[in-house]
Amino acid sequence: MAKRLSPDEYVAGLLAGNRFVLSRAITLVESTLPTDRELARQLLERVLPHTGRSVRIGITGVPGVGKSTFIEALGMHVVAERGQRLAVLAVDPTSQRSGGSILGDKTRMNQLAAHEHAFIRPSPAGRSLGGVARATREALLLCEAAGYDVIFVETVGVGQSETAVHGMVDFFLLLMLAGAGDELQGVKRGIMEMADAVVITKADSGNELAARRARREYQGALQLFPHAASGWASVARTCSALTGEGVAGVWEEIGRYLALTQPNGFFDQRRREQNLQWLQQSVREALEERFYARPEVARRLPALRELVEQGRTSAFGAAEELLGLGDA
Amino acid sequence: MAKRLSPDEYVAGLLAGNRFVLSRAITLVESTLPTDRELARQLLERVLPHTGRSVRIGITGVPGVGKSTFIEALGMHVVAERGQRLAVLAVDPTSQRSGGSILGDKTRMNQLAAHEHAFIRPSPAGRSLGGVARATREALLLCEAAGYDVIFVETVGVGQSETAVHGMVDFFLLLMLAGAGDELQGVKRGIMEMADAVVITKADSGNELAARRARREYQGALQLFPHAASGWASVARTCSALTGEGVAGVWEEIGRYLALTQPNGFFDQRRREQNLQWLQQSVREALEERFYARPEVARRLPALRELVEQGRTSAFGAAEELLGLGDA
Repeated sequence: MAKRLSPDEYVAGLLAGNRFVLSRAITLVESTLPTDRELARQLLERVLPHTGRSVRIGITGVPGVGKSTFIEALGMHVVAERGQRLAVLAVDPTSQRSGGSILGDKTRMNQLAAHEHAFIRPSPAGRSLGGVARATREALLLCEAAGYDVIFVETVGVGQSETAVHGMVDFFLLLMLAGAGDELQGVKRGIMEMADAVVITKADSGNELAARRARREYQGALQLFPHAASGWASVARTCSALTGEGVAGVWEEIGRYLALTQPNGFFDQRRREQNLQWLQQSVREALEERFYARPEVARRLPALRELVEQGRTSAFGAAEELLGLGDA
Repeated sequence: MAKRLSPDEYVAGLLAGNRFVLSRAITLVESTLPTDRELARQLLERVLPHTGRSVRIGITGVPGVGKSTFIEALGMHVVAERGQRLAVLAVDPTSQRSGGSILGDKTRMNQLAAHEHAFIRPSPAGRSLGGVARATREALLLCEAAGYDVIFVETVGVGQSETAVHGMVDFFLLLMLAGAGDELQGVKRGIMEMADAVVITKADSGNELAARRARREYQGALQLFPHAASGWASVARTCSALTGEGVAGVWEEIGRYLALTQPNGFFDQRRREQNLQWLQQSVREALEERFYARPEVARRLPALRELVEQGRTSAFGAAEELLGLGDA
């Protein structure tokens, strides 16, 4: 392990857009060591004035939907066609168990991984969604300080991580397949209503008609949803990462979203709300982590959970017993 | 104020189905006085073996959708046609500010309020959603111990309370109007995907065609949603509380849901999961309540929130500062 950089070295390197320093800084915010946390906190405070100027885009979809190829196609559009700098991050709390998130396998994103204006970072391996989400949000700020104009935050679409990603991005994309079975479409309930755009992927190789039909169906469904506070009406599009058809169209929707929500004030207002939510969540996670780490709580919890699950003691009674132990 | 009953008097009265004792017991679980909380805890533990045998139904919809008349119509079907005992509870954290929830105005449910097999209780006036939700879930258990076969939990459909209600019921009904403007339809995003059934209300007085069209549209949208773990495919129905048309049909859907999820084990599994979630939430709320009640935290919080909102300090830094104060 290389020796730790000084705070000044981190700040100077980040603001100069040094990729090596950015990688090291992200490793720092992923660390849970108290000394690293303190250094990370100082670093974040110092670069904070240089953050916030990117467009943050969440991308979700279950395995099999073609997420990596979609990210590569949309990412290449951003870096090559539009000449912007792109960072791709991921939130995947299962990455430790499953042996690495999709982004861990950079070979699936050959072109993008090789591009000088793209920075790809796999999901941190964290103990909890809270920890992974925190590290990713901090990494996002570091990427902004390093001058990235567009940030993709990828998530796997089957768990609670979408809510966390939704809380850290400006625009949320849901990838879906036309005519896939339920098992493939198995995204968690509630995700579709978070989506600012639903993209039907793999609209190629004879699948074009089915994709267009799916697009119409999703467009109809999205219209029934309550409108977002932003005034934005969610859209459905088709896209082929193979032929490139529809990729620019997806990017245009994001442009339309910004053209609506930046002048009407919603964009900034949502970021302010996200900041406050993040404060509340950070406090909550720290309180819970400390509480459940207490030996007397950790010892008693499994038995109490079993009693509660079986309905042999009430959740309230069990909670009060645990809280009493925590006080001891 | 009448003198407090003894634990034995509460238990005996509840198990005998005494409405007066039930009311008193609910007032007890709504109390935040430590001595009341301890008595409530004892009471809940003692009646716990007599709980869990009702069907718990969440009902949500924005003001104007006709929720009170729908609850009266479906409720009368339950008590008069089916001969079951019905308790109607509510979760409305705004009730203190807005001067009483819909259920506070029992005059809108004349028939049901007068029926000997119906028990109607307005939302507790609580400081927080967490407190209101806790009291309602405890009230639900008390109603079950008092022999009620069906519990409706009403919520107002515009905030976070739907998630709380969804977490305490077996079946979740969303009421919608055909062709209403966005302002009337303004339910929170994510609620539609929680719904086990969407009911288009006021399908009468010349509105029948529009209601049927809305039903088809919602049915189409619901089919695009990922199927629930239960195997249940959400349905859309029309209903008129005025003519009674469709009311029995809504109840039949609930029966179909039970016929599917009780034999396949999902019904019990979901209740066990809800119990565990409730344990976790009870602990979380208590930890947060204690933390934010600390004078040094309460003093510093407003200024820190403002700095975070304006992006002048990071959420993480602010959280660590607050947590440091909490330790002092």
